[in-house]
Amino acid sequence: MKSLIECIPNVSEGRRDDVVARIAESAVRAGPGVILLDRTSDKDHNRSVFTYLGDGPALVRGMTALVGAALEEIDLATHRGAHPRLGAVDVIPFVPVRGATSADCVALAKELGKSLADRYGLPVYLYEDAASSPERQNLANVRKGEFEGLAAKMKEAAWAPDFGPSAPHPRGGATVVGARAPLIAYNINLGTADLAVADRIAKAIRHLSGGYRFVKAMGVKLEARGQVQVSINMTNYEKTPLHRVFETVRSEAERHGVLVVGSEIVGLVPAPALFGAAAHYLRLEADPGPQVLENKLLDLAFSSKAE
Amino acid sequence: MKSLIECIPNVSEGRRDDVVARIAESAVRAGPGVILLDRTSDKDHNRSVFTYLGDGPALVRGMTALVGAALEEIDLATHRGAHPRLGAVDVIPFVPVRGATSADCVALAKELGKSLADRYGLPVYLYEDAASSPERQNLANVRKGEFEGLAAKMKEAAWAPDFGPSAPHPRGGATVVGARAPLIAYNINLGTADLAVADRIAKAIRHLSGGYRFVKAMGVKLEARGQVQVSINMTNYEKTPLHRVFETVRSEAERHGVLVVGSEIVGLVPAPALFGAAAHYLRLEADPGPQVLENKLLDLAFSSKAE
Repeated sequence: MKSLIECIPNVSEGRRDDVVARIAESAVRAGPGVILLDRTSDKDHNRSVFTYLGDGPALVRGMTALVGAALEEIDLATHRGAHPRLGAVDVIPFVPVRGATSADCVALAKELGKSLADRYGLPVYLYEDAASSPERQNLANVRKGEFEGLAAKMKEAAWAPDFGPSAPHPRGGATVVGARAPLIAYNINLGTADLAVADRIAKAIRHLSGGYRFVKAMGVKLEARGQVQVSINMTNYEKTPLHRVFETVRSEAERHGVLVVGSEIVGLVPAPALFGAAAHYLRLEADPGPQVLENKLLDLAFSSKAE
Repeated sequence: MKSLIECIPNVSEGRRDDVVARIAESAVRAGPGVILLDRTSDKDHNRSVFTYLGDGPALVRGMTALVGAALEEIDLATHRGAHPRLGAVDVIPFVPVRGATSADCVALAKELGKSLADRYGLPVYLYEDAASSPERQNLANVRKGEFEGLAAKMKEAAWAPDFGPSAPHPRGGATVVGARAPLIAYNINLGTADLAVADRIAKAIRHLSGGYRFVKAMGVKLEARGQVQVSINMTNYEKTPLHRVFETVRSEAERHGVLVVGSEIVGLVPAPALFGAAAHYLRLEADPGPQVLENKLLDLAFSSKAE
């Protein structure tokens, strides 16, 4: 395994456990080199998120198999759920992890898009770093109108798919494939029950309303704790780092007489995001990454596997 | 490789490069499972430090071979160097890295000690976590008197070796073997050229003079930078963490009107030491370790190797 890439397909089924399991396993059974790291389902959303790790060719093969399995099991014409979706397999991002670049992931997204169109007659849109035009970068734009509005949307020249026919797959709709930086889900909890404070801080830090370029944020009420939370998606921790967002939230909260009582990372986090925070606060003069013992172990582990 | 342990022999030869290389390689050639991560030599000290990684049995075999090679190449009776030393191979600490405990390392130290005594008639002292009495915990105590004073010291009942004869090996003296926590060499640079400030801060944080339990520190003048440095050895970052020492240095420096201009880690650092600093400053409510992507990669890499 020379390079390591993460692939996180979002599938429009979150209620039938046996079906979810079969779809998740189909990617692993397609051949060696694909590992299922995590899977979570949401019944309200009627949606599941799988996290795979592997090398590029193995992931393209695995994701092709996964879409095939999903098209057998899922019929979007009868699918209902709280989460917006365009396809039976709604979105498949590739994320570079180790020894791989964004460009590598863009190439994989295109390869997979072509494979899905050729094999299943499925329309495919490319998004984020793989997008063929600026208005396709944002997933929300591509998904607007959802499955139910897709047939009409596809008739517009601006929304011709990047691969496959200009009509929805009858059961599977369309799939959005792309490449992006690792995403960190990061929540900061405030010592107040006043949702307006969290909302105001979310507005201050998010890109949409004048905040940081790679931050999405909203205020959330934590009923059981009697607190509120600034719920954040960090879409590029290298360019907008954790510590900078944390310090801005802290400063904005204090302006309202409110303290940050804690923070939490949801799901996986790349080690360099935490090294960056340590380096900032400890005023380290050099990036500590090359000196981290565990990085040397990873180098050894994955270089010996490449032989 | 189910468990991973670091082993850092300090060898009393730092001038003859070919000899140093032969001794370093002897541990790797003794059999599979031992990797040489790093080696550094100091000509003034006439001493070399090797960092190996491996599983326990392979390291015991490798270190036994290394001591054999060193006894052939080095004669302490003619050895001169600035660094205090008791043996041709002066000290061999085992440090747990992954899937291993301090107790595992203590067991390895005893196994190696017995092996060196049986094979070479070499006296061996156990130190730090492996010490057989409190006065043997501190390496400086065990090494007091050095090779030149060893014959007399060994006649005292209190300094009978833990393994082997109560007389120095004629060429190799005695070897000190033990188990300890990972050590972090950490320097904090101050915006002043006044060495007295660094000395005073070092005194405030080091264990010897009333500071933190697992801190050794001294003031150092950085001539080229026109600054001074608090040079620190963190001997247990879990119990005395980086951020706490950094904040104390910062506070003590500000009391003298001096700012911390930067800090640096020398050599290797375990990732959890940096995660701990990030968690402190970001006020994380949970240890981020289990959520770190690279930790999942390490689990995969080393669990698959164990099969």
